[in-house]
Amino acid sequence: MNLKIAVLPGDGIGPEVILQAKKALYAIGEVYNHEFVFEEALMGAVAIDKTGNPLPEQTLNLCLNTDAVLLGAIGDPKYDNNPNAKVRPEQGLLKLRKELGLFANIRPIKPYKALIESSPLKREIIEGADFTIFRELTGGAYFGAKTLNEEGTHASDLCEYSEEEITRIAHLAFKSAQKRRKKLTLVDKANVLETSRLWRKVVQKVSEDYSDVALDFLFVDNAAMQLILNPKQFDVILTENLFGDILSDEASVITGSIGLLPSVSLGEKNALFEPIHGSYPQAKGKNIANPIASILAAALLLEHFGLTKEAHVVYKAVEKAIEFKVVTVDLKPDSKFGTNEVGEFVSNFI
Amino acid sequence: MNLKIAVLPGDGIGPEVILQAKKALYAIGEVYNHEFVFEEALMGAVAIDKTGNPLPEQTLNLCLNTDAVLLGAIGDPKYDNNPNAKVRPEQGLLKLRKELGLFANIRPIKPYKALIESSPLKREIIEGADFTIFRELTGGAYFGAKTLNEEGTHASDLCEYSEEEITRIAHLAFKSAQKRRKKLTLVDKANVLETSRLWRKVVQKVSEDYSDVALDFLFVDNAAMQLILNPKQFDVILTENLFGDILSDEASVITGSIGLLPSVSLGEKNALFEPIHGSYPQAKGKNIANPIASILAAALLLEHFGLTKEAHVVYKAVEKAIEFKVVTVDLKPDSKFGTNEVGEFVSNFI
Ligand SMILES: CC(C)[C@H](C(=O)O)[C@@H](O)C(=O)O
Ligand SMILES: CC(C)[C@H](C(=O)O)[C@@H](O)C(=O)O
Repeated sequence: MNLKIAVLPGDGIGPEVILQAKKALYAIGEVYNHEFVFEEALMGAVAIDKTGNPLPEQTLNLCLNTDAVLLGAIGDPKYDNNPNAKVRPEQGLLKLRKELGLFANIRPIKPYKALIESSPLKREIIEGADFTIFRELTGGAYFGAKTLNEEGTHASDLCEYSEEEITRIAHLAFKSAQKRRKKLTLVDKANVLETSRLWRKVVQKVSEDYSDVALDFLFVDNAAMQLILNPKQFDVILTENLFGDILSDEASVITGSIGLLPSVSLGEKNALFEPIHGSYPQAKGKNIANPIASILAAALLLEHFGLTKEAHVVYKAVEKAIEFKVVTVDLKPDSKFGTNEVGEFVSNFI
Repeated sequence: MNLKIAVLPGDGIGPEVILQAKKALYAIGEVYNHEFVFEEALMGAVAIDKTGNPLPEQTLNLCLNTDAVLLGAIGDPKYDNNPNAKVRPEQGLLKLRKELGLFANIRPIKPYKALIESSPLKREIIEGADFTIFRELTGGAYFGAKTLNEEGTHASDLCEYSEEEITRIAHLAFKSAQKRRKKLTLVDKANVLETSRLWRKVVQKVSEDYSDVALDFLFVDNAAMQLILNPKQFDVILTENLFGDILSDEASVITGSIGLLPSVSLGEKNALFEPIHGSYPQAKGKNIANPIASILAAALLLEHFGLTKEAHVVYKAVEKAIEFKVVTVDLKPDSKFGTNEVGEFVSNFI
């Protein structure tokens, strides 16, 4: 297979971890005779620094015309703590999601056996947990109108949803549930928000096409609690953009480290693969960032293009790294292995 | 002291648990010579059923003219699963918060030594955790304009904040931090939301009056993770309405049961005390609901009126109940004690 992949290393630890994902893909290409062509482009704070624009035209065009996008991470504290910054790295990511129409962000959550002890949760709580979060990614308060009055004393964000936006991701989530344990939980705040009531109504309607899937509802405050009290109750979680942002980061604690979790964002035509962790600027250049989430993002990419066997070889290699404790300090505080060594181990194992 | 207290038992388990809180207050009154006069009124689903209105005029007037309000819980699934319901129990609670101007909801989080094992989190993670969440309660998406188009295919919720709304709760939170470990964490989503950027700017400004308090910022997705990974890092958490709703329910897992957590909601003139758990309709009338959160809400009420010694007697009595394992099934699955027995133990101990 020939694949053209746009690579956006981004900010902070992004470039370091993405390099390891590329190494894994090169190794797969060699062994299984595929050609992966990578083209790098700028996005995030690094793009602002060089071009003034967090998502340069050139980057967007590249992404629109490749088979897939592999993203590192974006974000820089120099923008976060300046409420007056007019241009911010996140705008690049949000614009990319919108322009590529990436309406569904999918994050699988499952603890590794060898890492059960590194979770803050007790073994009996997380052992056997296995669920997937479907987060709507191009709607809600992220993209609604924003206002700030002239005096800078009053601000607003509009959260909007349409039936169509809810329907298309609901179908994806129900289809996934059909291939899993046939349970779908819609998380919302329907006792307060009008958009949540629309979600409930539309998802109930879509559920009529999937009579083999059990549908239930949970308020987001309760869901934030249930994820920790009893994560095994979940199979597929479906939710809107901001709730999904919060719950999927929270759910990462089940696996012991956010450094292990990849995600895929899907549109009608495009797909983007990334680790869910952020740019972690404090770790930049120190060779301590965990590359596993990025390597697993590459595995999701392989799976997406039907290269199931190849994806499983990557999963196996990652499992071996974990089993042999060739992991970074987030997983083993006294580890002598860094980003590079973990990546090297994985690509050698392939 | 003479106090006139409006009691709103509400829905589900509300009446059962509130009865135990009243018993504790009666016991305190007798021993320490205070007169607590309780006046009951309707709110929530029970009020809709009897009057058509989730917050009848009479209830509101009573609350406006008493020293404090003691609330059970409100909510009924028959409204939750009907997206077309025009009147809902929650509207009563939201209206009450707004009319009484209860802009700050304060939830202290601290595990009980005797219950450390009942948390899903490991002992070393939660032992020593001790923080308070200040949640803004009369603004944000809860109270902004809502729309639903005629065809029922498009909905919106507006999240709004003004400098004034942020300033008043920020002062309360900083003052609390000054009496504690002098650290305040603002939780927001300033990399995406305009309202969050306003929060960051205003809280930075208010912080100039409290130079002895260290201020830091956390994005809400990261905060949802940090609460579980390392809850000891927090002292005072300040956040907007919806984020506070989610994070404070999530934080309840640290204490092992949401059945243990009370909260107080403060306005310029009024104060409302309640357990943070919901109406838990499945448990209604079964004598299994945990009354401790409600009893502790009564203790917060005593403290609020300067009855510190009396409040401590209630805390002691609750600690004894927990120590002697006179607790409900949420804390001890094979317990033979119910709501009544726990409440009886506490008031006898006073
Ligand atoms: C960087 C930020 C804008 C982004 C989001 O909130 O969507 C991130 O947290 C994520 O989850 O991908
Ligand atoms: C019942 C509901 C409207 C309420 C809220 O969301 O504020 C509850 O969850 C709470 O936290 O008091």
